[in-house]
Amino acid sequence: MKTLVIVAHPQLANSSTESFLKAAADDENNVMWHELKAPFNISQEQELLKSATRIIFQFPMYYWYSAPAILKQWLDEVWNSQLTSSYLLKGRELGIVTTVAHPASAFQPGASQEYTIAEILRPYQVLAHAMGMKYLPALPIYQFAQQSEEERQLLFIQYQQYLTLDNFLHFSDQTQWFIDRLNTKIAREVDPLQQVKLEQLLSLLQDQQEELDDLHTSIGWLREKEDD
Amino acid sequence: MKTLVIVAHPQLANSSTESFLKAAADDENNVMWHELKAPFNISQEQELLKSATRIIFQFPMYYWYSAPAILKQWLDEVWNSQLTSSYLLKGRELGIVTTVAHPASAFQPGASQEYTIAEILRPYQVLAHAMGMKYLPALPIYQFAQQSEEERQLLFIQYQQYLTLDNFLHFSDQTQWFIDRLNTKIAREVDPLQQVKLEQLLSLLQDQQEELDDLHTSIGWLREKEDD
Repeated sequence: MKTLVIVAHPQLANSSTESFLKAAADDENNVMWHELKAPFNISQEQELLKSATRIIFQFPMYYWYSAPAILKQWLDEVWNSQLTSSYLLKGRELGIVTTVAHPASAFQPGASQEYTIAEILRPYQVLAHAMGMKYLPALPIYQFAQQSEEERQLLFIQYQQYLTLDNFLHFSDQTQWFIDRLNTKIAREVDPLQQVKLEQLLSLLQDQQEELDDLHTSIGWLREKEDD
Repeated sequence: MKTLVIVAHPQLANSSTESFLKAAADDENNVMWHELKAPFNISQEQELLKSATRIIFQFPMYYWYSAPAILKQWLDEVWNSQLTSSYLLKGRELGIVTTVAHPASAFQPGASQEYTIAEILRPYQVLAHAMGMKYLPALPIYQFAQQSEEERQLLFIQYQQYLTLDNFLHFSDQTQWFIDRLNTKIAREVDPLQQVKLEQLLSLLQDQQEELDDLHTSIGWLREKEDD
């Protein structure tokens, strides 16, 4: 998988969220971080798109419930008939990472924002549909400025998984992702003591994962019996 | 009522739909036709907004399911905290006139566009909600290029009513709108023979309207009885 992160932000240099996310993305292979700046070299932008299997639109939502103008300008100009009429993006994935000024609870009927994030992002879902792309569940980042250090550590990992993991919502895939990361870390570790500690952590994770897999299998059997 | 039509189109001079709509709008008092061109004089744009009670966003939807970049740029820059934090637009109306390349039937689950126009325009509805504005049912214009002369005449009137009529979806308000128009026409008519003809048409319309009002009243009574 190759991921292209299209970053649209009117004040990118001042955004602590974007520099936080950039650090997480820089940590990854096969992730291209692409900040939008007009004017666009259209064919170059199209080549970038064609080289990616997962395309992420990343922007703040507090600019009136859709991406800042620069992303729309890029869509209007780069996603022209040359790119779109021959279904060049068909089968690729489209994901949305969006920073939100309100808490998650505000986005429901009766709450201050009245509508869900999924409803607000609908035009991007329709775009994906029109292109024959696979629309991914969005990753909204609520009130980054108020997040604790623990919440940010979690976000860092969630974001990396969103960029690189096939099934980023599946728990067992997330665990496998950690196991892979730990294996890489162990291979690189030079301190033998640290290495032993990491290996212990790894075997713990693997044991848990096996136990979880067993439990899932048992639940599957029980459900089948119930359906008899 | 004072209506402000915000026109966003990347190739305005070449758009036959927009020149058609402009002719209909020019016919009306209390309608300001405002074509967006960057850069914006922000305070001037804000004064325009404050002078209107009905604000219309008018744009083609075939630029990837939301307004062209120029409208978003205008929103990002003009709808700043000065305008929005003090709820200056509260109670005003927000309407959408959008030209669409597909037929109406394409915008439903299972059809080519999969989603409804209302869903695609949701971010504008959320914007209206955030501003305390009244969101109007949108006026989508489907496949203008393929429309017959009769369809265009109907659209001409529908559009004028959308810009100027309080309850543009109510049949009796639409009839009253025609009666008002005819009265103005009769007062301006110099040919006595034409004037008599128009007066006959007017009295016919008024008779029908009275009959309709009577019928509505009767239906109201019958419903009340049923509820007893």
